Amino acid sequence: MALVTAVSNNTKPQASIQALLDLTETGMEKVNQIILSKAGSNVDLIPEIAKHLISSGGKRLRPMLTLACADMFGYQGDGHEVLAASVEFMHTATLLHDDVVDESDMRRGKLAARKVWGNQASVLVGDYLLGQSFKMMVDVGSLEALRILSGASAVIAEGEVLQLGAAQNLATSEADYMRVIEAKTAALFAAAAEVGPVIANQNDEMKLAARTYGMELGLAFQLVDDALDYGGTSADLGKDVGDDFREGKITLPVVLSVQRGTDEDRAFWKRCLEGNDIEDGDLDHAIELMRKYDAIAETVVRARTFGAGALKALEKLPAGAHVDAMADAVEFCISRVS
Amino acid sequence: MALVTAVSNNTKPQASIQALLDLTETGMEKVNQIILSKAGSNVDLIPEIAKHLISSGGKRLRPMLTLACADMFGYQGDGHEVLAASVEFMHTATLLHDDVVDESDMRRGKLAARKVWGNQASVLVGDYLLGQSFKMMVDVGSLEALRILSGASAVIAEGEVLQLGAAQNLATSEADYMRVIEAKTAALFAAAAEVGPVIANQNDEMKLAARTYGMELGLAFQLVDDALDYGGTSADLGKDVGDDFREGKITLPVVLSVQRGTDEDRAFWKRCLEGNDIEDGDLDHAIELMRKYDAIAETVVRARTFGAGALKALEKLPAGAHVDAMADAVEFCISRVS
Repeated sequence: MALVTAVSNNTKPQASIQALLDLTETGMEKVNQIILSKAGSNVDLIPEIAKHLISSGGKRLRPMLTLACADMFGYQGDGHEVLAASVEFMHTATLLHDDVVDESDMRRGKLAARKVWGNQASVLVGDYLLGQSFKMMVDVGSLEALRILSGASAVIAEGEVLQLGAAQNLATSEADYMRVIEAKTAALFAAAAEVGPVIANQNDEMKLAARTYGMELGLAFQLVDDALDYGGTSADLGKDVGDDFREGKITLPVVLSVQRGTDEDRAFWKRCLEGNDIEDGDLDHAIELMRKYDAIAETVVRARTFGAGALKALEKLPAGAHVDAMADAVEFCISRVS
Repeated sequence: MALVTAVSNNTKPQASIQALLDLTETGMEKVNQIILSKAGSNVDLIPEIAKHLISSGGKRLRPMLTLACADMFGYQGDGHEVLAASVEFMHTATLLHDDVVDESDMRRGKLAARKVWGNQASVLVGDYLLGQSFKMMVDVGSLEALRILSGASAVIAEGEVLQLGAAQNLATSEADYMRVIEAKTAALFAAAAEVGPVIANQNDEMKLAARTYGMELGLAFQLVDDALDYGGTSADLGKDVGDDFREGKITLPVVLSVQRGTDEDRAFWKRCLEGNDIEDGDLDHAIELMRKYDAIAETVVRARTFGAGALKALEKLPAGAHVDAMADAVEFCISRVS
């Protein structure tokens, strides 16, 4: 654990998303109003499920990025709020479908929608939110924003399919893993940030900088999430530690542990993750192996590398309160695990 | 069965979609090329599943409508072909998710994708096709077509959720049923037809006429499908007769039979459809009750009424080969059951 300790010492104690929350507070109130009104339907089950998810206290990092990346250019309309809401809808639809695919029981500390209303309703309400998401983007009327967000939608699904193929396959490489998290997580962070300068009519350099910030932040975010799955506590995560382990997901902490382990270790991983044969104490043993081989710590090191990339991208964007808050957000995402 | 016989006598023996197939042949070849290229992905499972569905011989009625409704106005670009392909993608995504929700084993005479690759892959590849569908629409660049098709996407999902709520509920009324089929089926037919005059820059009267034709045709099509589920043979349908019965779906033939039946009949429907307790011979008895109460025949009568509405809408559109072929298509859809 020496590496984690070293990393922790670099963490600014004040790392927080408070500045981003404060800067986007008025805009996010409008985004929340849009979300609640567009999650409505005269088919009762739809708002019921949508509100279960929407009120369950996600951090709403993605829509905040859209607002901040438009506001930093002095954007005056309300298109960024509608785009931010549509980004959150797209994300929520993904969560609904993910829980079905992963057979998850919990989501953000509450029962997953599929456990309350069933898999069928989760699939269909996800489809509805995706449809609404596109309708809202169309209302904004920017073909470029539509191109970026519809592209992200296809890429996210591609990443999920890729992850399904990698599940329960110990031959998954670090490059395979990176490809999955770039598609399933970072692509939407990137799109959410990029549509800010797009709607504010900025040049390609600004769009690329915002996109790069989002992409690198998204990679760091997912790496930390995957480290936390073997580290945090249930209350911190809003999900159970070891979910990925029980689902046979091959995340980076596993990839690194498998690569560095003995034959005996590999037999252990094979039984648990490929054979889906998990006994009491196996999760503890998995975490022990990860610590032994510095797998969690090195996952966090990689997260920090991408976090540094996100900070570098911010240098291109107009200096000011928004860029400062977005820098804090990088630190906040990473320090969850340190 | 007197009514069915009477209806059958009205059927033109030459009713066929051959004219529509001939008129759209060149365009549909391009649509098929677009479909195959856009179903590609370097994630192998995606083209594998997409091609399983795409090559499984659906009639492609929806994309043919898009082509015909643009061609009849002399439209010269290739946007109608891309929109037609995106309509088919949206439809294919819906089929993938439907099969998961309905737990279907067969689709168009082949094993359903979920039986070959699993529910998880079906959900995710459906999401991918939906994302690609939106990307393709965005490429065409018509915000009005985007508004129409993204609206249809949300409405379809709403209809599916509504159907889920109505499943296994004998209190479903004819109006409830109509609301479901308008949303889950007719809305996409309507959108597929409407985007033809939209991309060909026609006035609102033409757009409404094409939309109305599609809507009425879609209603007739679904009514006939629901009648066939208690009537055709497995080879005709590409699915098993009695699928709806086994899934507890409350379609119009059931609604009418329940309304007209005795207490004993209602106890039978309740056991089979609400109680999901189906024994050998129950499907035969269900079909017998439907015949006794003219439920299939009257479902077809309603289909003919909507078919007449579709023909009426065609009167507004420019007379010619396309309108003639679209009139034949109405007769073809209905005569499947007569």
